[in-house]
Amino acid sequence: MKAKLIHEAEQKTWALIFDKGDEFIDSLTRFAKVNELGASHFTAIGAFQSALLGFFDRAKKDYKKIPINEQVEVLSLMGDIALSGKEPKLHAHVVLGKANGTAHGGHILEAHIWPTLEVILTESPRYLRRKVDPDTGLALIDI
Amino acid sequence: MKAKLIHEAEQKTWALIFDKGDEFIDSLTRFAKVNELGASHFTAIGAFQSALLGFFDRAKKDYKKIPINEQVEVLSLMGDIALSGKEPKLHAHVVLGKANGTAHGGHILEAHIWPTLEVILTESPRYLRRKVDPDTGLALIDI
Amino acid sequence: MKAKLIHEAEQKTWALIFDKGDEFIDSLTRFAKVNELGASHFTAIGAFQSALLGFFDRAKKDYKKIPINEQVEVLSLMGDIALSGKEPKLHAHVVLGKANGTAHGGHILEAHIWPTLEVILTESPRYLRRKVDPDTGLALIDI
Repeated sequence: MKAKLIHEAEQKTWALIFDKGDEFIDSLTRFAKVNELGASHFTAIGAFQSALLGFFDRAKKDYKKIPINEQVEVLSLMGDIALSGKEPKLHAHVVLGKANGTAHGGHILEAHIWPTLEVILTESPRYLRRKVDPDTGLALIDI
Repeated sequence: MKAKLIHEAEQKTWALIFDKGDEFIDSLTRFAKVNELGASHFTAIGAFQSALLGFFDRAKKDYKKIPINEQVEVLSLMGDIALSGKEPKLHAHVVLGKANGTAHGGHILEAHIWPTLEVILTESPRYLRRKVDPDTGLALIDI
Repeated sequence: MKAKLIHEAEQKTWALIFDKGDEFIDSLTRFAKVNELGASHFTAIGAFQSALLGFFDRAKKDYKKIPINEQVEVLSLMGDIALSGKEPKLHAHVVLGKANGTAHGGHILEAHIWPTLEVILTESPRYLRRKVDPDTGLALIDI
């Protein structure tokens, strides 16, 4: 993954271009840690060669896994980065398009890029913080 | 719904975090009125416990209703706020993910959040205005 | 297609409102050339009366065509503009909603708007450049 700061101001805009074989969550989390991101949001398009998506099961309070084992277009990927303790934590959802044109999607647990993913990320000057919600066990943004 | 201004400049960026049970259109419209929004755009991810979507029927010049009566992931929610007369008017479309990973969506008529919806909203300094289009009866943005 | 600059700063924000019958790729590419865009990203909602989508076939190194011959809601449209040689080149993906609420999508090859498409486009002050990737034949953003 390569990064270019395309607008340097109090609120920053980055273009992040992922390479063949990069894993999305891992690569973006590393970028967020190095750059100490605390209140970012992003959108992206591109394609994955495989992905593991999640659907939150209210009864089990856990993600039901939805494996995607084929090449898919990334039709819409959006999410945010907020602090969880002292570390930046990523939250992203995706809509994928299969070869027949049908759309599928979920919460991204893992996603393997091929051949590219073009992310535009905006980092705001004030932080957002996640806190565990006792009802669900999820770390929700708490303002 | 709670709001935090994460970038305060001529163009403002807000994080809006919705709570369990909040209705999206109603809560965001109230926020838009209080803050006198006149040219905003937003993106969001999260989950709904139910929603009422619309598909515009060209023949009937009205929305065909698509009820969603199950827990769904909000894979992509995007829209804008423009003035209609003196009041801010919301327009939003959504892509939802069901437990089996299939994606569905439409124009949002009503949406009930559970457990969260994370919205990033940008308010620009110049207004946009809607005007009724006689062909369709819809209030389209008129520049 | 009509344009209004809703935030004029080092990084610019435009609202672009497309009219009935406009073709998306053609109209936006013309706007990008006239305004010499070199690093833009955009999101949009609205509706199409027809579209031609693509799914990249790894074996054929070409887009498999997915024709959409019906009125559809544009649930999510996102993309970017980067330089390819000296000319701005558009890349956009879309998620469409059919009358029954199911979602479909792909890379946009062609899209015919009806009755409107509301695009928010941000132009950053530093350029992005595309370069042909020998593996795929695609012009990928190269940082």
